[in-house]
Amino acid sequence: MIRTALLTVSDRTSSGEREDRSVQGVRELLAKGPFVEVDYLVVPDEQAMIRSKLRLLSDVDGVDLVLTTGGTGLGPRDRTPEATLDVIERLVPGLAERMRSVGAQHDPKASLSRAVVGIRRATLVVNLPGDGDGAVHALGAVIDVLPHALAAMRSQGTAAAPAER
Amino acid sequence: MIRTALLTVSDRTSSGEREDRSVQGVRELLAKGPFVEVDYLVVPDEQAMIRSKLRLLSDVDGVDLVLTTGGTGLGPRDRTPEATLDVIERLVPGLAERMRSVGAQHDPKASLSRAVVGIRRATLVVNLPGDGDGAVHALGAVIDVLPHALAAMRSQGTAAAPAER
Amino acid sequence: MIRTALLTVSDRTSSGEREDRSVQGVRELLAKGPFVEVDYLVVPDEQAMIRSKLRLLSDVDGVDLVLTTGGTGLGPRDRTPEATLDVIERLVPGLAERMRSVGAQHDPKASLSRAVVGIRRATLVVNLPGDGDGAVHALGAVIDVLPHALAAMRSQGTAAAPAER
Repeated sequence: MIRTALLTVSDRTSSGEREDRSVQGVRELLAKGPFVEVDYLVVPDEQAMIRSKLRLLSDVDGVDLVLTTGGTGLGPRDRTPEATLDVIERLVPGLAERMRSVGAQHDPKASLSRAVVGIRRATLVVNLPGDGDGAVHALGAVIDVLPHALAAMRSQGTAAAPAER
Repeated sequence: MIRTALLTVSDRTSSGEREDRSVQGVRELLAKGPFVEVDYLVVPDEQAMIRSKLRLLSDVDGVDLVLTTGGTGLGPRDRTPEATLDVIERLVPGLAERMRSVGAQHDPKASLSRAVVGIRRATLVVNLPGDGDGAVHALGAVIDVLPHALAAMRSQGTAAAPAER
Repeated sequence: MIRTALLTVSDRTSSGEREDRSVQGVRELLAKGPFVEVDYLVVPDEQAMIRSKLRLLSDVDGVDLVLTTGGTGLGPRDRTPEATLDVIERLVPGLAERMRSVGAQHDPKASLSRAVVGIRRATLVVNLPGDGDGAVHALGAVIDVLPHALAAMRSQGTAAAPAER
């Protein structure tokens, strides 16, 4: 069982101006298991607020997986990757590469996602695009390896060494 | 209309020892529009000089797009990616990944390009390889999404937030 | 001739608890030349020790190529990419991307490798996964371009400029 938190990053959804357009497709994919949604949060495109929520979900709640949606584009307010880079200890570049390369088979604009994937403590953080189709294609490209990722993170009897940097 | 500057990075072209071998193919691709060449500069492979020109083109001239050619390889003088990393505020890794993966279908050595793509203020900086065929294949791999990239950078009524880092 | 050092990163191999499971396949690939094995070291998954060996192999021994195996996964002790990032002066991201994308054609879990490739002085450092098949597939994906990489690093009459950062 993978305890999963969803973090939607969007000025308009946060202000109530717009419904969350990406979360439904993400939830349908997760329903195939072994993912269990334990939290759902919405924040505006503010780097400090995104960062703060990621820290909370990892350090206090100890969720296994955080899926962010939104804020990965080239717009002036898009800072989800930067907020993620601020808090992760180790990058997992191959998952971001795969989301983009598989996504680009559906839509070449998937190459423009600046999504980051990384590890903070025992939590894997995965950035997904904010548009519904993009989020579903990106998550679909890696969902089968996420359980292996989480299993690897939990492996080895040795206590987790604190990150050096 | 995308106001585009070309920045050739090459010791030999800068000293007049050799013609610019990559710029002609790049210009032919750009001619299909909506790109308008507004500047063309040549600098030697000096990190500080490349950095300085990138800052000038972005901060003073306010061009939309800078295409650099050269200095992306593994030679001891190749520092264009480092100069680009010095000045950009946000990475766009998917465009660099796509240039390499599509380029490698033509020539496996395209994997050796250390090209970086990123945003400084309202300017997108794209590193291209220095050899003519490599530059054309790399640019050809992303040229169709560049107008979408620029449109995204200009989107949203909110003023561009200054980069936090 | 490419003077090559093998650096196995594994707590269990280092303690003698387990044989080195990846090195044999790597050696078979290298035997096709032009690679000559000049050193073989085993260290535990300790970031400082990995870093120290990489510095030694580059700065003192001056080997052309270091192939590390192990420590690239998501386990709490996996720190080979971080140790590599600590010592390299310039990234070569395309080789890491290619190892993952070609590797994923054999096994989707290859996307989970956090491998880094980079240059320190005149030495190219390539991280390979720790499992035997993964290491062979990863190395096989790039072995044909490694001689071109080393030739490029040695090219140009100008003395290697010291890295600015």
